[in-house]
This record gives sequence, C-alpha cells and structure tokens, in this order.
Amino acid sequence: MENKAITKRDVDFAKWYTDVIKAAHLADYTSVKGCIVIEPNGYAIWEKIKSIMDQKFKELGHQNVQLPLLIPESLFNKEKELIEGFAPELAWVSEVGKKKMDERLAIRSTSETLFCDYYKKHITSYKDLPKLYNQWCNVFRYEKETRPFLRSREFLWQEGHTIHATKEEAIDETYRMMEVYKWFNHEILAIPSITGIKTEKEKFAGAEFTLTNEDLMYNGVCLQDGTSHYFGQKFSKAYDVKFTNKDNKDDYAYYTTWGKTTRAIAAIIMVHADDYGLVLPPRIAPKQVVIIPIGDNEEVKELANKYNDELNKSDISTYIDDSDKTPGFKFAEAEVNGIPIRIELGKRDLDNKKVTLARRDTREKMEIDLDSDIVTEVKELLETIQKDMYEKALKRQNELTFEAHNLEEMENILNKQPGFIHAMWCGDQDCEDKIKEIKGCKSRCITDDKPIDDKCVCCGKEAKHHVIWGIQY
Amino acid sequence: MENKAITKRDVDFAKWYTDVIKAAHLADYTSVKGCIVIEPNGYAIWEKIKSIMDQKFKELGHQNVQLPLLIPESLFNKEKELIEGFAPELAWVSEVGKKKMDERLAIRSTSETLFCDYYKKHITSYKDLPKLYNQWCNVFRYEKETRPFLRSREFLWQEGHTIHATKEEAIDETYRMMEVYKWFNHEILAIPSITGIKTEKEKFAGAEFTLTNEDLMYNGVCLQDGTSHYFGQKFSKAYDVKFTNKDNKDDYAYYTTWGKTTRAIAAIIMVHADDYGLVLPPRIAPKQVVIIPIGDNEEVKELANKYNDELNKSDISTYIDDSDKTPGFKFAEAEVNGIPIRIELGKRDLDNKKVTLARRDTREKMEIDLDSDIVTEVKELLETIQKDMYEKALKRQNELTFEAHNLEEMENILNKQPGFIHAMWCGDQDCEDKIKEIKGCKSRCITDDKPIDDKCVCCGKEAKHHVIWGIQY
Repeated sequence: MENKAITKRDVDFAKWYTDVIKAAHLADYTSVKGCIVIEPNGYAIWEKIKSIMDQKFKELGHQNVQLPLLIPESLFNKEKELIEGFAPELAWVSEVGKKKMDERLAIRSTSETLFCDYYKKHITSYKDLPKLYNQWCNVFRYEKETRPFLRSREFLWQEGHTIHATKEEAIDETYRMMEVYKWFNHEILAIPSITGIKTEKEKFAGAEFTLTNEDLMYNGVCLQDGTSHYFGQKFSKAYDVKFTNKDNKDDYAYYTTWGKTTRAIAAIIMVHADDYGLVLPPRIAPKQVVIIPIGDNEEVKELANKYNDELNKSDISTYIDDSDKTPGFKFAEAEVNGIPIRIELGKRDLDNKKVTLARRDTREKMEIDLDSDIVTEVKELLETIQKDMYEKALKRQNELTFEAHNLEEMENILNKQPGFIHAMWCGDQDCEDKIKEIKGCKSRCITDDKPIDDKCVCCGKEAKHHVIWGIQY
Repeated sequence: MENKAITKRDVDFAKWYTDVIKAAHLADYTSVKGCIVIEPNGYAIWEKIKSIMDQKFKELGHQNVQLPLLIPESLFNKEKELIEGFAPELAWVSEVGKKKMDERLAIRSTSETLFCDYYKKHITSYKDLPKLYNQWCNVFRYEKETRPFLRSREFLWQEGHTIHATKEEAIDETYRMMEVYKWFNHEILAIPSITGIKTEKEKFAGAEFTLTNEDLMYNGVCLQDGTSHYFGQKFSKAYDVKFTNKDNKDDYAYYTTWGKTTRAIAAIIMVHADDYGLVLPPRIAPKQVVIIPIGDNEEVKELANKYNDELNKSDISTYIDDSDKTPGFKFAEAEVNGIPIRIELGKRDLDNKKVTLARRDTREKMEIDLDSDIVTEVKELLETIQKDMYEKALKRQNELTFEAHNLEEMENILNKQPGFIHAMWCGDQDCEDKIKEIKGCKSRCITDDKPIDDKCVCCGKEAKHHVIWGIQY
C-alpha cells in the first residue's frame, strides 16, 4: 500500500527523508530553534544503539563516567586550537536568574577540556594508566542549518576519552575504536561503511590524526558516522596531564578520543528506508516482529499469544497489535515503522494450516506450515533479512563508487551522480581546495586500497595517497 | 582494618559523607563550581538504578523520549507559577560565539514547559490518550550551597510526564508512580522510606498535590527522594493541551509528573555506609562479589576462575581481583567500595577444604565447605544481606522516629536528636511556619497513619492531619 504521507524518494530525497521521520514518529521539530524532540520510536532505536555499543565498550575495558555540562571560559581558553574551531558554535551561559555571571560558561560541544582537567588530578604514575573512560551525554553546537538527526544544535552521543602511558598504545586504541565503529555499522546497522584516515585539512581540530567511518547514503551523498582521534601529547601538555613513567621520568599522557552520535539514525534511514517508510535491520530494531491477529476469533488470539510468548522467550523482541484498528491500518503502521517481520494470523490461514510472514525489507509475503517451529522460522528469516539488507546496501554503494583519473572525469561523475569517488592525490592542500570547488566535493578519507594511478587527479604531479572523495552532509 | 582516609561517622557526619565519596571513588569536585564528575564507581550505581527503574517503567507502559535541553524564555513565561519558583535558579544562554541572542534560552531545570508544548501538537482525541512519556536526562539549577549527589547544580534524573483523559486516571497514575518509588527504595535500595502527601506550603510549584518518598539518614536528617505530582489541568490550560473527549466535547488533558534523581546515591551512602566506606545493598551493587586469590598458586587460580564463571553465569555479577596488589590492600579496596561479598581463596583454605566468605555489611567472615555449591551459598548470602540491611536501616529509623504532642516536646526532640517526628497539625500554615523556627524543621508529609492526638502540636486547636516532620537536606 502506498504511503501518501511520504514523498517518493526519487522525486525529492530531502523531503522524503523528513517525511519518513515524521511518518515513523522518530522525531519532530520543537519551539526551540534547531532542536528536535526524539519521539518514542526514535529514542528506542538510540537505546538499542547505546546498549549494543556500551556492551562492546565494556568488554574492551572502558568505564562510563559523567562530567559537567558546562565549561568555564578560562578553562576552555587553555587549548587555543580547539576553541578556535568551535568558538563560533559555542553557546554561552552568562546570566543566572537576573544576574550577570562573573565568568561565562560554555555548554559542552565536546569534552576534551573537562576530561583533561579531570585526568590531571587523578594520575601520578604509569601504574594509573591507561584510563579508558567513556561518556553518554548531550552536546550543543549552534549550527546554522539543521535537519533532524543529521545536524541538530543539540544531539546525543558517546565520547570516549582515553589516556595512555605510551604513544604506541594510544595509537592502537585509536585504531581499535575505529574498528568497533566499523564492526557496528557493518554487523549491526547493515551499512557497508568504509574507514580510513582524514587529510590534514579535514581532521579534527587539535588532533594529530583522525580516523573516520564514512557511510554512503542511497542518493550518493556521504555521511561521516563515527570518528576516532589521536591527540598525541598536545592536550596533555596544554592541561598538564603528567605522570611518572617506568623509567621514573616525568612524561605527558598520550590521548585519544572517539565518538558516535544520534546521526547513526539518519544513516539507517538514508541507507535502508524506502517509499513505504522506515526499514530497520533486525539487529537494531527495538521490535523485531509484530503479530497481527485478523478477525475476532479465539483460536487466532490463542495462537497469537502462544507465538508472542515463544518468540519473546527466545530473545526475539515481539509484540501483538490487538488494538481496534483495521488489519490494513495495522499492516501499514508496521510497515512505516520498519518492523522487520510481520506475522499475519487469520481464521482462514489456520483452516489452511498456514501462517503468513511478511518481510519489511523486500515486502514479500511467504507462507509457512502451521506446525513448523515459529522460533526457528523467524530466527532464520531475521538473519536472512539482516544479510540481505547489507548486501543490498553494498550493491547500491558499489554502483555509486567511481574512479577518476583527472579533474574532468571527477567533474563528470559529480555532475551525473555523486558517490564515493576513488582518485589519487599529491598531498597538497591546494589540490584539495580546487576539488572542493566542484560542488563542494571533499576528501572523505585516505584509504589503504591499492593505488589506481600514479598521478594526482588534480595537478597531475606524483600521487602520494589513494583518497576517497565525495559530497557530504 | 580502619580506613584512615575516612573521618568517623559519629565524629563529623558531613565530613564522613564526603570522605566516603572520595575513598570509594564515586565522585569528585571539578573546576566547574557546584558541578561534580561522577566517577566509574558512582556512575555504575546510577546505571544500575536506571536499568531497574527503566524496566519497571516500561512494564507499566511508559515510553522514553528526549526533549531539548534549552527552553526559550517566551515559552517559559507562559506558566507563571512555575517560573516564579525556579526563576532565581535558572541559567540562561544569552550569547552564541561573540553574538548576543535575540531571545534568551534557559537550561532546563525541569521540562513541564517542553512536554506541554510537545503534547499540544500531538493529541486531538481521547483516543490519543494516555501518553505515558519519560525522559532520562541532565538538569541544571543554580544552587548556592552544593554537596556531591545531595545537591549539585547539574544532576541526572528521570522525569515522567503523563497526560490523561480523566482526572481519576491521572490521580491513579500519580499514586501508582509513588508506589514504584517506594517499592524501589524498600526492595532494591533497602531503604525503609515513608510516603505521603506534601502540605500546600511544601508541594511542587504549580502542582495540585505532591506525593513524596522520604528517607531518614543515619544521622536523623530527612531526604526527599522521589516525588510524584498531580497538576490537574493547570498546565494544559496554560499551554493549550486540548483534546476531544468521549462526549465529543473539548477538554484539557490531566497532567502528572514524577521524578527521581542521582540523589538516590546520597541516600544509599547516608543510610548504609559506615566508617570503613561504602556498603551496597546486593540488588543495587554493580559488582556483587569479588574473588581474591591469595598467593601464587595454580590450584587457587583455577578455583577462582571456576567460581567466577559459575557465579557470572548465574547472573551474580562477579570479578576476580588478580592485580599485583597485596591481599590486605585488595580486602580494604573491596571494603571501601562496598562490594557485598568478598571470597578469599588461599592454598591453606584449600588444604583445609574450606573457603572464606566475608560479608561487607556486618564485616563477618564465615567458612563454607569446599565441596558446597558456590552459587547456592552466594545467592542465599546475598539475599540475607539484602534483608539484613533493610532490617538494620528500619531499626535505626524506628529508633529515630518520635512523637510530639506540643511544641515543647518537639523542641526537646530536635535539640537532642533529629528524626521523623509524628505530630498532629491543624492545617494552618502559620503553625507550619512557627515549627520551622525550631532548627528549620519542616513537614515531610501528611501520613495515612492513625491520629496520635486530637490537637495541633503547635496551636492546640483541632487537628486535621497527622504529619511527619523533620529537618531536611
């Protein structure tokens, strides 16, 4: 059934995106400019993201903490490189009640300053290291243009902040956490993201290097979705995060940070959703199965309850829609909300000894025998859906992955259809700037993939790096 | 072993409290005035509180959402009664980067305003009701005097905001959620809190009535720890939260809110901790059992691993402390951190076919046979500890619960030892004000307990209510 509340994806991608968000009740605008309310359906996805990532972080030895929301201006000013980058976006608290404050406090846009200020007081020896802390919280950046989940002034995220006794260990941590983000996107979100290192121009302010996880949306636009930064000793020197090393000498801690945000929900939508609404990969779906009984029949109700119990007991998150809406309405609602499997149960099916399962991703319906084991059938189908969604996203990504050997080729690709564009680069920022003039195309990351040429796509001089380029959100 | 970092509880309760927080690494002060960092040990307790309460909320049909951190001044001003109460404590964002903003934004101190603004746009008919939303978030109140967990400018909490089609249903919800808080304190935190209704003077600004959950600390000072408010239609009228009722007539929604904060951690400390550090009730302890192997012996290590696996598999959160600290140091650390059970494993114990279990609450050690089932033994002991901690807290609370029949009695009690003081009240605020002159003693709540007199404790006129009074944090 066509969903009239949703603009067709191929007609107007931007409108389609916000229509899906509204129709699936993920989020809504508020009276607070640039800030959204995350509604129950959207927040349930974030809770699932949190619980899976949090478990992984803990398995790797990380601990959660909570630092203040507000940062005194004097503390912020210690690390100039950081504040220069964020300064125009910082919201400042300067009044309490009717009184002006002695010192302004910034709402955190990121918490390097506060973590360093904490660590400084809590380490003395290499025996206190590493400290592997993470924080789940809200941050605020006064963005000019905002879109739900994609870019809003306030957003939710996790920020890992770790300090180490050696450079090697800190660099390992930076790579390890990028692998976690990649694992999460590939295995849980069914998004075949690519990872690599950011160029100097695109790295995080103050970092020695930044690793990034980059997704490709259905329309060929790129989305940075998880970054991991190695800061070396820059911050620990600015904030005096010192310790005594194994040789009994003073040294500054080696520092990493890494973060992933509610933007992941934007990626799920723009990679998987369709003209009928949201499509959730089973592993991230808060509700994986909905059972819809048709007609007022005791036998049907009993079976619905039996299935519901059995599936929930086997850790398949299931619910029965026994509201007094029509079956057609319930089907459409389950569809727009992206529930991976819908089980339809009617008297006629029971008489025929059949049960109907509908897949959300392909919208196919299939019948299974009434006496087959529902848990096994559903479990297998969920796995199939997860796999198929990944394959479908990978196929689309491959179709939108291009190679360019000179500026003309690059321009032709970008004029026709954006995507991931592989091209060699000399390492010179002038070339990066020139490429940006073509529709704002930026380097996404330097990749380990084999070189595809020996000359820079822009200046034709000797190439140093294989770079993936694209237009970004 | 005495913990020298902790002031004796009976010598200086306030100092003891902050010493325990520091020694158990629950929280620390920061460079941000009045704001704390919640350290891993403290945050793990909050995570446990969240997960147990969140599960209960969801069982009762509540859904989580996330509303903005900031509230435009114009929106806030719509409900005068609320802003009058909070106005002096509100922090205002009035600058972005170097620019002054057109309108100030308040950091939420509570979110009634935003929930009403959301609900207004999302309900039309009684069929859309009830809406049972909850939010886990940070709030900010510019308090003058602050103490970790007890009162800090920023704190974490959950705030439930529900709207209903009828007054009866909303009042039921107000009572139902107070029962949840009571259940949580009694069953999970082992705190025998009392509940009742606040007097007009002490109720939440703007509420028709406020139910409260009141704990008694070891020193006899009271702590408000969870409140549930019935707002009637006041807010929905101010914010135009309208719907069409069953009789097809316009009506305003009936509104409730209820909240519990990180202050619960203060209550755990001040009810259960002792001169040796934190004491955690097993049901809220992030780690319930620590296994400490003594000496470098393979057999001991094997048994430690076996126990650890078996206990964790039976959902008893257990870890082995195999760091290179001395056994004495490990014992003291487990003790200060409040781990309910410590299992000590040495070669000599094994030779004697015995294993030593140490209870944190009573500091008793007991031996069990090596061939007894460790899971059964530990499970039973955890239940015993939970029960005994509740009983011990109840005994203390009963010892500090008094009756007063006139002002002189009240004064005598408060001068000797504060606690819960039962006394009758005429219902006149003048009497409440007069009682407050005695060491700031306030009404905690009106209770359903039988009357203990027929005259007001203060003026001697006819008594209307049985009230519990006390000095509060």
